Amino acid sequence: MGRDLAPGEFVMGIDIGGTNIVAGVLDHKYNLVGRCKKKTHGKNRGQSTEERVIRAANVALEIAGTPSLKAIGIGSPGPLDPIKGIIYDTPNLAWNNFPLADTIAKAFGVPCAVDNDVNMGTYGEWVFGDLKNCKDVLGVFPGTGIGGGIIIDGKMLQGFSGSAGEIGHMTIEVNGPFCGCGKRGCLEAVASRIAIAEQVAALAARHDAPYIFENCGTDLANIRSSSLAKAIEAGDKKVEAVVRKAAYYIGIAVGNLVNVLSPEAVVLGGGLVEAMKELYLQEVERGMKEHALPFVRKGVKLSAAKLGDDAVLMGAAKMVLERLKD
Amino acid sequence: MGRDLAPGEFVMGIDIGGTNIVAGVLDHKYNLVGRCKKKTHGKNRGQSTEERVIRAANVALEIAGTPSLKAIGIGSPGPLDPIKGIIYDTPNLAWNNFPLADTIAKAFGVPCAVDNDVNMGTYGEWVFGDLKNCKDVLGVFPGTGIGGGIIIDGKMLQGFSGSAGEIGHMTIEVNGPFCGCGKRGCLEAVASRIAIAEQVAALAARHDAPYIFENCGTDLANIRSSSLAKAIEAGDKKVEAVVRKAAYYIGIAVGNLVNVLSPEAVVLGGGLVEAMKELYLQEVERGMKEHALPFVRKGVKLSAAKLGDDAVLMGAAKMVLERLKD
Repeated sequence: MGRDLAPGEFVMGIDIGGTNIVAGVLDHKYNLVGRCKKKTHGKNRGQSTEERVIRAANVALEIAGTPSLKAIGIGSPGPLDPIKGIIYDTPNLAWNNFPLADTIAKAFGVPCAVDNDVNMGTYGEWVFGDLKNCKDVLGVFPGTGIGGGIIIDGKMLQGFSGSAGEIGHMTIEVNGPFCGCGKRGCLEAVASRIAIAEQVAALAARHDAPYIFENCGTDLANIRSSSLAKAIEAGDKKVEAVVRKAAYYIGIAVGNLVNVLSPEAVVLGGGLVEAMKELYLQEVERGMKEHALPFVRKGVKLSAAKLGDDAVLMGAAKMVLERLKD
Repeated sequence: MGRDLAPGEFVMGIDIGGTNIVAGVLDHKYNLVGRCKKKTHGKNRGQSTEERVIRAANVALEIAGTPSLKAIGIGSPGPLDPIKGIIYDTPNLAWNNFPLADTIAKAFGVPCAVDNDVNMGTYGEWVFGDLKNCKDVLGVFPGTGIGGGIIIDGKMLQGFSGSAGEIGHMTIEVNGPFCGCGKRGCLEAVASRIAIAEQVAALAARHDAPYIFENCGTDLANIRSSSLAKAIEAGDKKVEAVVRKAAYYIGIAVGNLVNVLSPEAVVLGGGLVEAMKELYLQEVERGMKEHALPFVRKGVKLSAAKLGDDAVLMGAAKMVLERLKD
């Protein structure tokens, strides 16, 4: 893949998440030569999110020895316009019709492109995670929300709105639990980290989840993916049941999407999967097998993401170079 | 669109359905110059489905004045291999790994290509039904089953298995009613003509659906789309409620698919929609609005199919000519 950049040329990828901002400088072989991770909401309340993004990028550049960049690619939560690089509305980052691509391009004097973070994570896994031979790939990233990235015929699906892949708001249980979007029975309402945390917090409050009660209390905000994994290791059986059920729901959704899209590969990523790979792969496979038609799911490769934390930034770096070619 | 065929050249499209086979001969301007509709399961029990297809095609050719054909395109129920033109397994037509394309090509001495009937219906509506400016289109055809056709970036989505678009088996109600596929809560289980007929037959048996009881009795097989439309016109309020609920479920599924695919246009076709266009458009729009995220559904054009009975054969005719160009 050395043909995107000549030796001595560099590109930056930035992953803007609700919790962390990660900036990485990559050389012409896509080796990470400088990396900086910062909290999205830091102690310095006067600093805007874009100032924190620029700061993280500058630190990564310094670590890399301040090379000159060819371009910067960013993965950001949406909704956004991937063509214009505008973030429409992300309450969590306090952006509203914010020209992110232009702002960063100006700050660093190089071309910048922005796309959805989950799209970029899927793209990163596709390019760098042994999936490049598959033309049709589905990425599913369960976390605080649940995002999907869809590659069809070797191209990222953006759709008419630029926001295709909103799989977290597929209704899979009509009249099911309420979702943050205002609907009921969305995948996110039954399978996101928040959906898991609310059930686990209730278990803890009833002394049915001793590890969680001792280590996280009953505040949903403290019940992170890593704590869930540790509670399961420590033998909290009811916590395991809650997580397995949520993972199985992801499997139902994957089954639905296999029926609709017929991908060749499905890749699972995000915090929950990172923390509990085996459990997630088991339950998602079970749900998918039970809910996808046999002749459509035949031969579908299900795997966990390989790039971990760096999938989004690497996908974004590759994406911006691809766009420069067009 | 005259460039597919020169003046004096002709193409045939064939729609093989569970109820009818329709063959049509089209001239270079895609005018239908010969058409024959036959029951798929005729009185002549000795005749195979492929013999009936050939017979229908020959009658259509005779009506058209026996012109020489450039190619034959076929839309058939799946699962099938659209590249090899093999029908894997359609119990309803008694085909199993049947080489349909080769059989018909041999019988008429011209190239033949086969694709899924709903794909071809969507393709026909896309090309000939005022949707050609939309690059991303979703077709939804509720009937005895519920099929979907997906056009992305101007190309029919076939996916890894060749069978993308199996929207009838998306789970939208975990633990919902049983489906013919063996799962529970599939879209087909709550919104197909059979799902409607079973509820309406029960109403009729309880004398809550007087029109249906008098005209169709309580046999599901007799409760057709046209009877449902007439019962609603005649004032059977409970029948109307059942049909509206089924149509609303289609709207939920459309909402899900808008979130995932972000199409520019959604076209509804098939027997139920043909019989009750206004009711279907109303309920599907309501379901879609309530279940698709506002920023994804913004500007999506929802419409009823324009070609009626001829969408599949016209789509298939266009498809085979496109493939000849490749």
